[in-house]
Amino acid sequence: MKLQANRIALGVALLLALGASRAEGPYRNPDNKNSNDVGEGSYPIPYKLPQVNEINAALQRIRSYMDKVTPTRVIDKKTGQEITDLSTPTAQAIIAPAQGDFGILVYEMGVVHSGLIKARQITGDASYAAMTERHLNFIKTVQPYFAKQEALFKLERNNSFARQLDPRALDDAGSMCAAMMRARKNQIGPDLSANIAKCSDWVANKQVRLADGTLARNRPQAWSLWGDDAYMGIPALAEAGRYDDAVLNALNMAKYLFDAQKGIYQHGWNKDHADAPRFYWARANGWIVLAMSDLLDVLPKNHPGYPKVLAQLRVSLKAIAELQSGAGLWHQMLDRPDSYLETSASAMFTYVIAHAINEGWIPPSSYGSIAQAGWNGLAAKINAEGQVEGTCVGTTYANDQAYYYNRPTSVHALHGYGPMLLAGAEMIRLLQNPKIAIEYKVRTYHYMDKGSKTDYREH
Amino acid sequence: MKLQANRIALGVALLLALGASRAEGPYRNPDNKNSNDVGEGSYPIPYKLPQVNEINAALQRIRSYMDKVTPTRVIDKKTGQEITDLSTPTAQAIIAPAQGDFGILVYEMGVVHSGLIKARQITGDASYAAMTERHLNFIKTVQPYFAKQEALFKLERNNSFARQLDPRALDDAGSMCAAMMRARKNQIGPDLSANIAKCSDWVANKQVRLADGTLARNRPQAWSLWGDDAYMGIPALAEAGRYDDAVLNALNMAKYLFDAQKGIYQHGWNKDHADAPRFYWARANGWIVLAMSDLLDVLPKNHPGYPKVLAQLRVSLKAIAELQSGAGLWHQMLDRPDSYLETSASAMFTYVIAHAINEGWIPPSSYGSIAQAGWNGLAAKINAEGQVEGTCVGTTYANDQAYYYNRPTSVHALHGYGPMLLAGAEMIRLLQNPKIAIEYKVRTYHYMDKGSKTDYREH
Amino acid sequence: MKLQANRIALGVALLLALGASRAEGPYRNPDNKNSNDVGEGSYPIPYKLPQVNEINAALQRIRSYMDKVTPTRVIDKKTGQEITDLSTPTAQAIIAPAQGDFGILVYEMGVVHSGLIKARQITGDASYAAMTERHLNFIKTVQPYFAKQEALFKLERNNSFARQLDPRALDDAGSMCAAMMRARKNQIGPDLSANIAKCSDWVANKQVRLADGTLARNRPQAWSLWGDDAYMGIPALAEAGRYDDAVLNALNMAKYLFDAQKGIYQHGWNKDHADAPRFYWARANGWIVLAMSDLLDVLPKNHPGYPKVLAQLRVSLKAIAELQSGAGLWHQMLDRPDSYLETSASAMFTYVIAHAINEGWIPPSSYGSIAQAGWNGLAAKINAEGQVEGTCVGTTYANDQAYYYNRPTSVHALHGYGPMLLAGAEMIRLLQNPKIAIEYKVRTYHYMDKGSKTDYREH
Repeated sequence: MKLQANRIALGVALLLALGASRAEGPYRNPDNKNSNDVGEGSYPIPYKLPQVNEINAALQRIRSYMDKVTPTRVIDKKTGQEITDLSTPTAQAIIAPAQGDFGILVYEMGVVHSGLIKARQITGDASYAAMTERHLNFIKTVQPYFAKQEALFKLERNNSFARQLDPRALDDAGSMCAAMMRARKNQIGPDLSANIAKCSDWVANKQVRLADGTLARNRPQAWSLWGDDAYMGIPALAEAGRYDDAVLNALNMAKYLFDAQKGIYQHGWNKDHADAPRFYWARANGWIVLAMSDLLDVLPKNHPGYPKVLAQLRVSLKAIAELQSGAGLWHQMLDRPDSYLETSASAMFTYVIAHAINEGWIPPSSYGSIAQAGWNGLAAKINAEGQVEGTCVGTTYANDQAYYYNRPTSVHALHGYGPMLLAGAEMIRLLQNPKIAIEYKVRTYHYMDKGSKTDYREH
Repeated sequence: MKLQANRIALGVALLLALGASRAEGPYRNPDNKNSNDVGEGSYPIPYKLPQVNEINAALQRIRSYMDKVTPTRVIDKKTGQEITDLSTPTAQAIIAPAQGDFGILVYEMGVVHSGLIKARQITGDASYAAMTERHLNFIKTVQPYFAKQEALFKLERNNSFARQLDPRALDDAGSMCAAMMRARKNQIGPDLSANIAKCSDWVANKQVRLADGTLARNRPQAWSLWGDDAYMGIPALAEAGRYDDAVLNALNMAKYLFDAQKGIYQHGWNKDHADAPRFYWARANGWIVLAMSDLLDVLPKNHPGYPKVLAQLRVSLKAIAELQSGAGLWHQMLDRPDSYLETSASAMFTYVIAHAINEGWIPPSSYGSIAQAGWNGLAAKINAEGQVEGTCVGTTYANDQAYYYNRPTSVHALHGYGPMLLAGAEMIRLLQNPKIAIEYKVRTYHYMDKGSKTDYREH
Repeated sequence: MKLQANRIALGVALLLALGASRAEGPYRNPDNKNSNDVGEGSYPIPYKLPQVNEINAALQRIRSYMDKVTPTRVIDKKTGQEITDLSTPTAQAIIAPAQGDFGILVYEMGVVHSGLIKARQITGDASYAAMTERHLNFIKTVQPYFAKQEALFKLERNNSFARQLDPRALDDAGSMCAAMMRARKNQIGPDLSANIAKCSDWVANKQVRLADGTLARNRPQAWSLWGDDAYMGIPALAEAGRYDDAVLNALNMAKYLFDAQKGIYQHGWNKDHADAPRFYWARANGWIVLAMSDLLDVLPKNHPGYPKVLAQLRVSLKAIAELQSGAGLWHQMLDRPDSYLETSASAMFTYVIAHAINEGWIPPSSYGSIAQAGWNGLAAKINAEGQVEGTCVGTTYANDQAYYYNRPTSVHALHGYGPMLLAGAEMIRLLQNPKIAIEYKVRTYHYMDKGSKTDYREH
């Protein structure tokens, strides 16, 4: 009996490891009006056609929460008092801290801005960009103050503004740089061309690279490559028109990290130990496909790299689609169904799949219901307060499954917010796409090119 | 705590998704008479040598249940009254409906007849074929009535007899056609050669095909290929002696659907989007291997296609055997151990493996205990009433894991009944196979060619 | 509701199948001193730097337990009375039986001795070898008595000493032979060169082999190959300096059993049915990598087989590392995350990975934290009494997943004890390795060549 009790304890522990969920299913599909239909099952997450107004409402909850918890004030770090006189810097001045990782200059915030800008583009609702405008105006306004602080006090990395004043890593530079360029393109916020020039220069010219030009890191060890850096580098290069470099990095990421047998990417790679065990961390896969998608958005179609990047994106999305869980989301370890369902990666996959359909890169008939299931799973992760649940916290390029499997999730992990905004916005675009028809027949969803013929007599 | 509560909720939801089971284990192997043997564990399903009388009893329960719930009467669909005067048709006349999907002309019923005929062949017990005889006599008797009804009232697909009077799809034609031909061969029931000619003609000449001759559908979209259609087409072609066509379809199913890396088949394929994500639905794999097995049963051994089909069947069964669960059954998504255990596919796999051993296509020593474990798992799915539990209901060729994972199971899904009869009958044949010896040694079962030497000193 | 109740029952049954565990987690990493760190999760097993004194204490518990339960006495099997007069044999005389499988001449005890010798080598603590000394002295002392008993009574396999007097299988000979040779090398116990000559002769000259020289068995059927026999054969050949034969067997094991796609080994292979379904039983994989590691320990570096065996070991360890569970241990079926976590295989993997790092065969930066997670998982399996929990009992080369999945675990399965001693000892060596630095940074562990530069600013 003790043996069995222990086995149950282990079982429950495994369940505990499966990740948080707001789902209170099982759910029955509300689009099936026959409540006695024995051919209709129940689902761990809603299985239904998402409604544009519901998505909008969910995104607005996130926007409103983000707005509320990201102050744009300068304070004295000892007293906590706001500093309003920005003429004479003190060494104590810092940007007022936000909850969790919600720093206004961190790379995750760059993805949030890109998501807000995308939501405004797609919905036409200016409120989405208001926070971006507020943040960028604040950057413009207080940067001279922090620059003077630096000149006077040499705070180095302790300067609240260090990432913008003196970027020293892709994390400092790339994502916010891409966001600022996108804001410019969409005439949101002030002219930050000086900032753009500086962060863009870091990505293009100062980050350490392998001999073949691939953006690299000396963390955790010399000559490491992180899948994450696809997003930290490629979109900034692409938005700046450095197409050859962006394409080279997209293809080299695949060269080093792509596993052709599985169709997905290992998290990292190290030049000195190129044959190390591989860990297929979901979020790194998210960054890679998001970066390729962002690149294709601006890459001229006649660039010789265009078909190569598109082909690589397609083969990646096929494998990712196959690895989706039965609950719509994807697993923390993409190839391991006993690892928990992770939100940020799932949001990136859902966004890229929906976007690739909308752009005509992949067919709606094969991928539409996959994006839909992804979104339905994601929507259950946005709580009433507008927080995004189930996102793995900041994670290093590590060397064992025990580390990756057990990374905690937190509503304070900012990594989930930007991808969630992107996914929701692109789903709205998909649902409103004039070229696509969506039919609910034989208890599932058929996304297809408008005008194509179908027949649903059941089997 | 809330987080953990949610995680437990998700865990339980996942458990709920694992499928129904009558198992009330853990079970201890009754063939091991040492009740203190520490080398003997317990099992989630019985692990033991199946007994012929137990299998027979289980099959008789199914037969009896099927017999009871499939009326062969004509009724007035408004009043429900039986119509006994078959001289003058009325527009209201229909075949009395059975429970669930148990229509007497549906393709699943064709498999039931094939299973009953097989059970009679193997056991010599004529009772198995009585229901087939009753159904076929009813078809013979009332068909003229419904033909007249059609001439008078043009009911089209609403005519109860439409599938036989005017087949328009493989589902209408193939499986029942093969069953009627097998009944003829075994002199069961009346002469239905006119029906056979019509349904056979549909399969051979009227169903839409790809340019290379592969049987196709325009559902859900133009130029779709379904793994299910292997069974809806190949046995009818084979029984009619159309060997070249049957072989071509068996090999082309493999050409389009077989994944050589996994050794199994994707559910469907679409000409316009040949590179879509693949979903390895178990039942489609069942239909494919069952169709190949049925083909080999009648294909002349000197036909040039024989070794090719046999080789393809062998490589499929090897992968399927490896994917068996620890509970003997197979998973709804054949490659995903977190999807539920599904009965109809498991029954088809068990039948084909047992049959392939009996026919000498695969060795008993490698596959015997796999068939046995399959049957032990299946036996636990036949309830006291003779219902077959755990069968996935009718399922379309869809495009997302969320759909497939969450298809409900039902005792009213007729798909499980025919394969279960086939599996049980073939297991009886295996247990009685004069060429095979079965030894229970070192706590497992050794099926082998009679006369071969073994040695079981434990390790 | 009944359906759901049944599903829960199945779920719980699956949980029951997941194996015993002493873990009473979730655990928080004690090396992270910030108890409010939101970036730190909890773990199903301890995630921390193992401490040498803790490992030592755990190994001493095992040693002490083993010592206590392995009597070295001769008794009358009917009366149970000790026989002290060893001058005149009686037919009733047997070696006093130990608990479970703890026979003092069984192959598993050979691994225990190898583990104890290793623990003494690494820690310098002579107490580890005391039991080995006691057992070997007993063998030396009583063997003439049992030889006389055999001459008088012809007891054959019922002679307690049959394995040493008259070995007839690799299980009788190889593992104990290697252990006795290692004892000799380390000057532990008496001169057993006559025994060594006999068992060595069996392995080298008398065991059945395939035509190409690969050690084989006629169990369960003629011309079977067991992965287990890598360990039953290769170390004994290697310790005896029969390098060509040892290398040939290591490489041929890979030729017949290695699956290049999965990077791991099927349990067995049979000449007559070479294409049978494959079952990737964890312990067989453990024996194979342990045998290759033992071989490399003594194989001259300039032997032409050295780079081949090393390459094969490396590719195996890479795949094994990738298949580690999130709880540090490995699954009973190595490729199936729904099978239980098994101790003996996990201990062999942990030992070989740690040893390969210490020997410079694989880099610490890629594998150090994998060995650590393995050990942390293992440590939780050593109970207060010094018993090793969670080890699969003796298992034959079988043919179905149902058999393998449901093999019970037992503290009386001796297979877990030797590997556990090896793993713990080698972990101590790793933690004390003067060439390796271990840093705990960004919530994980970085094993690296001492002096290499690292940088852990988080992402």
